[in-house]
Amino acid sequence: MPSSPVIEIPLPTIADVRAAALRLDGIALRTPLLESEAINTRAGGRVLLKCEMFQPMGAFKIRGAWNRIVRIPLDERARGVVAYSSGNHAQAVALAARTLGMPATVVMPSDAPGVKIDRTRGYGAEIVLYDRETEDREALAARIVARTGATVVPPYDHPDIVAGQGTVGLELAAQCAERGIVPDIVAVPCGGGGLVAGCAIALRDAWPDVAVYAAEPVGFDDTARSLAAGMRVANAPGAASICDALLVPTPGALTFEINRRLLSGGLVVSDDEVRSAMKAAWSDARLVVEPGGATGLAALLERRVDLRGRTACVVLSGGNAGADLFAAAISEG
Amino acid sequence: MPSSPVIEIPLPTIADVRAAALRLDGIALRTPLLESEAINTRAGGRVLLKCEMFQPMGAFKIRGAWNRIVRIPLDERARGVVAYSSGNHAQAVALAARTLGMPATVVMPSDAPGVKIDRTRGYGAEIVLYDRETEDREALAARIVARTGATVVPPYDHPDIVAGQGTVGLELAAQCAERGIVPDIVAVPCGGGGLVAGCAIALRDAWPDVAVYAAEPVGFDDTARSLAAGMRVANAPGAASICDALLVPTPGALTFEINRRLLSGGLVVSDDEVRSAMKAAWSDARLVVEPGGATGLAALLERRVDLRGRTACVVLSGGNAGADLFAAAISEG
Repeated sequence: MPSSPVIEIPLPTIADVRAAALRLDGIALRTPLLESEAINTRAGGRVLLKCEMFQPMGAFKIRGAWNRIVRIPLDERARGVVAYSSGNHAQAVALAARTLGMPATVVMPSDAPGVKIDRTRGYGAEIVLYDRETEDREALAARIVARTGATVVPPYDHPDIVAGQGTVGLELAAQCAERGIVPDIVAVPCGGGGLVAGCAIALRDAWPDVAVYAAEPVGFDDTARSLAAGMRVANAPGAASICDALLVPTPGALTFEINRRLLSGGLVVSDDEVRSAMKAAWSDARLVVEPGGATGLAALLERRVDLRGRTACVVLSGGNAGADLFAAAISEG
Repeated sequence: MPSSPVIEIPLPTIADVRAAALRLDGIALRTPLLESEAINTRAGGRVLLKCEMFQPMGAFKIRGAWNRIVRIPLDERARGVVAYSSGNHAQAVALAARTLGMPATVVMPSDAPGVKIDRTRGYGAEIVLYDRETEDREALAARIVARTGATVVPPYDHPDIVAGQGTVGLELAAQCAERGIVPDIVAVPCGGGGLVAGCAIALRDAWPDVAVYAAEPVGFDDTARSLAAGMRVANAPGAASICDALLVPTPGALTFEINRRLLSGGLVVSDDEVRSAMKAAWSDARLVVEPGGATGLAALLERRVDLRGRTACVVLSGGNAGADLFAAAISEG
C-alpha cells in the first residue's frame, strides 16, 4: 500500500489550465453541453451533460495528451513519444503525435477493446500489447524509452496532463455562466484521477462551493476510498469491470494530492448501473457513451447524491464502446 | 396520380423562416454542427453533421409544430390541436401543446415504433391508432376536428410548418458562416418534404448556388421521381422501409412547389445503406440517428454525390430509434 509521497513538483493551477486551453484552441473541440428532460426526471434534478465523446478521437484524452506533447522541445520531438494506456489515452497520444509529425509507441493491455486498439493503430502508432495481470506497463514503457530516447506521456500523473484535462472544467464553467447556471454538483468519471483533478481546479476556481465528485466502478473505487482514508489506497487485485477506461491500481500521486484538497468525495457504481446509464444516454439524450464515460451519469441516475431542487453537471468522458457491449446495454432492462 | 395543383397560398419566404426562428428562441435548441474525420474519409470529402436528434423530443419536428401551434389565436387554443403522424411530428405536437397548456389528439399508425407512441403519450397527448394500409389518417383527423373544433397541425404541407423546419437551414447557414465554410452540397432526409423545403429556402438565400438534395428510402422516392418528372407522382402501394419517419404516399402540394424550384434533385438509399449509415454515425461520430434521420448521411457515405474537394452538410433529422433495430444496425457488417 503506497503512502502519500512528498510531491516535489508544484500542483497545477488555474493559470496552467488556462494556458492549456490556449494551446488546445483548434485541436480539441469545445464540446456541447446538452440537457434531456427525461434524464432530469430520472435523476430527480437538473443534469447538464458535457459531451466529451465528440472530441476527435472520441474522448477527453486529446486535451491532456496534446498539452503534454506540444510542450516537448522541438529538438526532442524526432525521438517520438511513448505511452501506456487502456485505449483512449493511446488514441489521443497517437493522434497528437501524428498531428505533430512525431513517431508514437503505445503499450496497451491485450484485453483492451478491439475498437480502441484498431483506432490507435489507425492513427499511425506502433502498438505493444501486454498482459494486465502479469506485466508492468510502466516498466515496458521505460524499456522503450531506454532504447529510443522517446518522451513518456503518462496517462494522468503529470501536471501538463492534469492541466489539459482541466480544460473540460474550464469550458463547463464558461458554458454554465453563459446560461446563468451555477451548478451545485459536478460528477466526473475517475480512473487515475487526472480528469477530475483538472476539472476540480477549474470548477472550484469558478465556484468555490461547488461539490466535485469522482465517479468510479465497483472494485476500482480507489479514489473514493483514498479520499475517505486521507491517503492513497490500492484496489484489491483481480477485480473486473466493463469500465475498461478506468481500471487503475491506485490513484495517481499528483492527482490524489489535488483531489484530496478539492473533491467532495467519491461515488461508486456497479457495472449494471453503468449499462443502465449507457442505455439512458442513448434513449433519452441520443448520445453514445462508453462504460467508463458513464460512471458519473450512473451515479446521478442512481441518486447517489440528492438533486432535489439542485443542478448537476456530469462529464460524459468518452464514446468508444464496442458494438456487442453497446448493443447489449441498450437492449437490457 | 395527383397533378400539380394551383397553390392559392403564397410560398413561405426567408422572412417567414426568420420570423419562425424568433418564435423558436428558447423552445428549439440551436443544435451542434459536428464533424468526424472517419465520416469524411468514408464520404470522400468534408461532411458537417447537423444534429437534430438533440432537440427536446429527439427530432427537428418541434420547430415546425411550435411555429404552427403558437400562432393559433388565444381564443381557439382551448379547443386543442389534432395531428396525424408516424411519430416524430406526433411527439412534437404533443410537447408544443403541453407547453402551451392545450389538449392534443394524435392519429398514429398502429405500426409506428412503440417508443414513439409511448413518448407521445408521455407528453400528454391522446393517441388514436389507425391502420396505415386501410384507413385514411387525414379523414380520421377531420372527424376529430368536426367533433372538437381543434386546429389541425399538418406534418409538412403548411407554410408555418415549412418555415419552422427551415430554421434548421438558417442555423446551418449561420454555423457555417461562423467557421468560414461555404458548403457545396446539403443533403436532407425527406418524407413529405417540409424539412428539405424549409432548409432550401434558408440555404439558397444564404448561398444561391448551393445544391440541396432530398434523401429518401427506396420505395418512398416520390420526391426524387417528382423532381425528375416535374410533377407530383405517388409511390407504388405496398412498399416497406425501416425509415418509419419518411413513409408518405406523395410529396406535399406546397412542399413540392418549393422543392421543384429550389432542389437539385433526390438521392435514394436502401434500408441496408441506412443501417450502415446509422452504424457509421454511432461508431465514428458517437451519434444516435434513427433510420429516417440517416438517409442523407447514407447517400453521402455511399457517394451518391461526388464530394472530392468539396464540402457537404447533412441534416441528421432525428434519433428516436427502437433498441432492437438500433442494436441490429450497429452489430452488422
